[in-house]
Amino acid sequence: MSERPKTPILDRITSPADLKGLSDLDLDHLAHELRAEVIWSVSQTGGHFGAGLGVVEMTVAIHAVFDTPRDKLIWDVSHQCYPHKILTGRRDQMQTIRQKDGLSGFTKRSESPYDPFGAAHSSTSISAALGFAMARELGGDCDTGHGDAIAVIGDGALSGGMAYEAMNNAGHLGKRLIVILNDNEMSIAPPTGAMSSYLSRLYAGAPFQELKAAAKGAVSLLPEPFQEGARRAKELLKAATVGGTLFEELGFSYIGPIDGHDMEQLLAILRTVKARADGPILIHAITKKGKGYAEHRPDRGHATAKFDIATGEQKKAPSNAPSYTKVFANALIHEAENDPHITAVTAAMPDGTGLDLFGKRFPARTFDVGIAEQHAVTFAAGMAAGGLKPFCAIYSTFLQRGYDQIVHDVAIQRLPVRFAIDRAGLVGADGATHAGSYDTAFLANLPGMVVMAASDEAELVHMVRTALEIDDRPSAFRYPRGEGVGVEMPERGIALEIGKGRMIAEGNRVALLNFGARLKEVQDAAEALSARGITPTIADARFAKPLDEEMILQLARHHEALITVEEGAVGGFGSHVAHLLAERGVFDTGLKYRSMVLPDIFIDQASPRDMYAVAKLNAEDIEAKVLDALGVARMEKRA
Amino acid sequence: MSERPKTPILDRITSPADLKGLSDLDLDHLAHELRAEVIWSVSQTGGHFGAGLGVVEMTVAIHAVFDTPRDKLIWDVSHQCYPHKILTGRRDQMQTIRQKDGLSGFTKRSESPYDPFGAAHSSTSISAALGFAMARELGGDCDTGHGDAIAVIGDGALSGGMAYEAMNNAGHLGKRLIVILNDNEMSIAPPTGAMSSYLSRLYAGAPFQELKAAAKGAVSLLPEPFQEGARRAKELLKAATVGGTLFEELGFSYIGPIDGHDMEQLLAILRTVKARADGPILIHAITKKGKGYAEHRPDRGHATAKFDIATGEQKKAPSNAPSYTKVFANALIHEAENDPHITAVTAAMPDGTGLDLFGKRFPARTFDVGIAEQHAVTFAAGMAAGGLKPFCAIYSTFLQRGYDQIVHDVAIQRLPVRFAIDRAGLVGADGATHAGSYDTAFLANLPGMVVMAASDEAELVHMVRTALEIDDRPSAFRYPRGEGVGVEMPERGIALEIGKGRMIAEGNRVALLNFGARLKEVQDAAEALSARGITPTIADARFAKPLDEEMILQLARHHEALITVEEGAVGGFGSHVAHLLAERGVFDTGLKYRSMVLPDIFIDQASPRDMYAVAKLNAEDIEAKVLDALGVARMEKRA
Repeated sequence: MSERPKTPILDRITSPADLKGLSDLDLDHLAHELRAEVIWSVSQTGGHFGAGLGVVEMTVAIHAVFDTPRDKLIWDVSHQCYPHKILTGRRDQMQTIRQKDGLSGFTKRSESPYDPFGAAHSSTSISAALGFAMARELGGDCDTGHGDAIAVIGDGALSGGMAYEAMNNAGHLGKRLIVILNDNEMSIAPPTGAMSSYLSRLYAGAPFQELKAAAKGAVSLLPEPFQEGARRAKELLKAATVGGTLFEELGFSYIGPIDGHDMEQLLAILRTVKARADGPILIHAITKKGKGYAEHRPDRGHATAKFDIATGEQKKAPSNAPSYTKVFANALIHEAENDPHITAVTAAMPDGTGLDLFGKRFPARTFDVGIAEQHAVTFAAGMAAGGLKPFCAIYSTFLQRGYDQIVHDVAIQRLPVRFAIDRAGLVGADGATHAGSYDTAFLANLPGMVVMAASDEAELVHMVRTALEIDDRPSAFRYPRGEGVGVEMPERGIALEIGKGRMIAEGNRVALLNFGARLKEVQDAAEALSARGITPTIADARFAKPLDEEMILQLARHHEALITVEEGAVGGFGSHVAHLLAERGVFDTGLKYRSMVLPDIFIDQASPRDMYAVAKLNAEDIEAKVLDALGVARMEKRA
Repeated sequence: MSERPKTPILDRITSPADLKGLSDLDLDHLAHELRAEVIWSVSQTGGHFGAGLGVVEMTVAIHAVFDTPRDKLIWDVSHQCYPHKILTGRRDQMQTIRQKDGLSGFTKRSESPYDPFGAAHSSTSISAALGFAMARELGGDCDTGHGDAIAVIGDGALSGGMAYEAMNNAGHLGKRLIVILNDNEMSIAPPTGAMSSYLSRLYAGAPFQELKAAAKGAVSLLPEPFQEGARRAKELLKAATVGGTLFEELGFSYIGPIDGHDMEQLLAILRTVKARADGPILIHAITKKGKGYAEHRPDRGHATAKFDIATGEQKKAPSNAPSYTKVFANALIHEAENDPHITAVTAAMPDGTGLDLFGKRFPARTFDVGIAEQHAVTFAAGMAAGGLKPFCAIYSTFLQRGYDQIVHDVAIQRLPVRFAIDRAGLVGADGATHAGSYDTAFLANLPGMVVMAASDEAELVHMVRTALEIDDRPSAFRYPRGEGVGVEMPERGIALEIGKGRMIAEGNRVALLNFGARLKEVQDAAEALSARGITPTIADARFAKPLDEEMILQLARHHEALITVEEGAVGGFGSHVAHLLAERGVFDTGLKYRSMVLPDIFIDQASPRDMYAVAKLNAEDIEAKVLDALGVARMEKRA
């Protein structure tokens, strides 16, 4: 296996303060060591990879020039934070990254004062940095003090409208604020969108080789840096500018493009900015995602399992069943072969959603709109109004970004947009920020919406077909991250009857009413219970909206206890069942009703199984809940 | 009173097809008649006003040049749609606008084929138009056929990131798409933001007087309009361009600025665009909001009650109590006098949220970020992380736009952002698109969040104070549109005990558990019931999260029936109460539990009282629910 690289300079760094004594040359050497350390570290643990390799020099330069944590450094998305974590006192814990009880794969306020604002979703950094800048101006009470606010944002994240909203506001407020555009021409997928083309043109217009001289020149013009006026500083900064009118029109000074891997240039520019900036400033740095190891891979090493450094071979566990993502993609491709009106929309996640496969087969009907969930939803609504059959494939957690558009543009207009909601429930290594906890709750109370959850991968195939056939109103189907349970797969999907569940097993005393992919756990719990002489009835609701009222009321009437199980928060399936039971007076004469939902905590990363153990939604928890409900231990009596 | 204006040309128009036979001069005359008609019409009914007056010529010109409804005309926000409604067969119904069973104040798909995509929230039109454009390209199955897709969007709406996301995608796709930027330098409030300054600079750089000639020139260069190539057309369009590089950098051709009140120029430009556009094109038209009547008022006649045309005097009912909005603003001002860390954030609604008052007193601590709820929330989160105490004042319905940011940036990081949620519940004339139905559901299942609702205006004062003192986690308080109930007002707010409700009246048999501003209705219902010999207990929960578990369990133990009442959808307060009762086994031995929530329909505009009648949440409905629960009529027995 790979040996740990020698890192003599890095070994002396315990915090960013230690960078202050290093020469520029040593900082450059440090960057090389840091890159080797990141490669070695991720080869041991897996994790986000390419993004961090692209910002090694930038990370060193920022921490060398600025005074973190007093200066607030905010990494957008923050999967590029591994070098930052190594430099800010977390090197020893890097082997725990993305594991249970270990470091987060993202920046996290509770983890370090050097992480002033956590992230994981995209395009938030400029807003947050502007908040810190205004807190500085207004004397906010901050433990680490107030200095500069620095956002590092990728070109992919710039496709999110929120980043534009923040620049629009920052340009208006006019306060000192530093935005570093980390332009690697690559977010997770190759870039799409006009902004991306624009950035490429800026870069093409003036290769940074020429600019290196300009940057040096700008610095050499500063013999007495603090005695010249703000106007002069602005002129100097503009001397380094070769384009970027779009940013200037939004009120930013623009510097760039510069070579984000050239330490000398980075230090010169950052020192100039630190000395001189008197308003919002954008530094456009060109970097290579995966630099030094994975820059030639198609995904630039975006995320990886553990791997062998020499061969690049990843150590993935063998899979037993196809992933839900792939099942969705293949089912949609299958339907689209016969229906030219089907289109597919992704918000910059073609691989993650499986729409890369759809896109290869039907490029003209596949739309990657950028990290732009708001637009994705309303764009799909427009296509539906125009008589197409759009499938909008967005992770549960990211669909939160398009919530108002689902309400306002889709549901109120009853347009048949189909939402394919991947990563429903707990997702593992990405932790709380990526948990798909809320979609059932925020969708099922919208009038007219059909909300389904797949209990296995065959059900998912049927739900794709069902959604396709629902042409008079919006529909959504949710399914988890990871592999299916290995059930036999249907030749093709057959449309389900809307609002009808299915009986899985007939039993007595207790009915377990499942919604979603906990079905296997429910069945395992039932098996364990049968050893104790309790034979639960098992039903799979399939629909949170419309509810199968008849089935649910029958289950309630014929059992002593009814327990709902779902991988979602309060307010979702169980709440709709409870509302039905209340309205029909079923509680009036007594029913041992329980609702198993995600608990009222944000659950840190671990394996999905461990996370579900924390959530108390595994088979043993379901078993315990049944025993508790049927027993007397925790039962409270009314007076 | 004002006489109805004479409108001989308008009287002959029954649909846009009738415009095709009119000369350009007649179209200009028609615009004058249409403006007089709009002024007269709104004077009779009240409604949105200034925006429509600003687009009278544009409306006539678009319908004259394009072939609606085959060409899809999409008005952003759409409060400017009154002239459009008059021209598209709805003139006779204009006296019913914004009233029960009448026309909507916005475009609405179900109302007319000339409204291909409804709106009410901002910045959606380009996304929707792009959807129609792609449906055209891909042969979508549309009843009205497929032609051009035209979005008309105001400069205010351009501050919303979603509009930028849509332009970014449209510029990338490169298909024919027409965006008309209606630049009245005014949305609801005077504009803020760098984009607004940019647009002003474009305008200042080339007054449209000079451009008139250019536009005419462009048209005169077109002797055989359909024989020249696309390249030539682009050159012609560019001849009319004097700036707009920002739009061009996003992949749009830019034409403008043009005089949006000059019919001759509008017709010339639109005809050229119709004949020649071969990709996304943006026409920048300068207009005056309120043109011809209210252009000199501070709000340009944004929305008005019925009024006298000659005097301008509005006929408003006298008010008995201060509005919740004003109570909030004054309470916050009061607190801010003593706490320099309090800041306030609005997303382009300073008047609507009362932050105009706060802003007058504390301009440096007031932030109007534009129509940019995503940024507003994360900007506030950044300020909170920097040690300020931000109050983010956003209507319930618009807060949906910042949902992911509430989850990801505020709740997961447990930052003490205070959300002041105005317009909670049903809002009246603005109808379903503005209903504040979902905030309790989408906030109360977020770990760590405190969620309150004010049951009267004095409670609101206390909740402002309570939120201020909650400095270790986020909090939200919701309150309705309109006037308070006239209770005595406290000198200043006193912080409530977190998670504690209050008993309003002790009774027996049934407990009415209120959350929010239905309390008066609950009390009225109780009074009616007492005449029947039933004396309900009344409690005001104050908190949906954390719940007052002790109070709720006591109410459940000591009453035959427990009924929750809230002005929100399923998934909110009642669902959390039901979850508690289920977990504690309270349903096991029988409890007549009911949850009164907003029903599973979108409720069209009417008076709030009439809307609540549809929702069955008025006093008589609460009374009926109590009788039903205590009686046997609708009770279902379990076998």
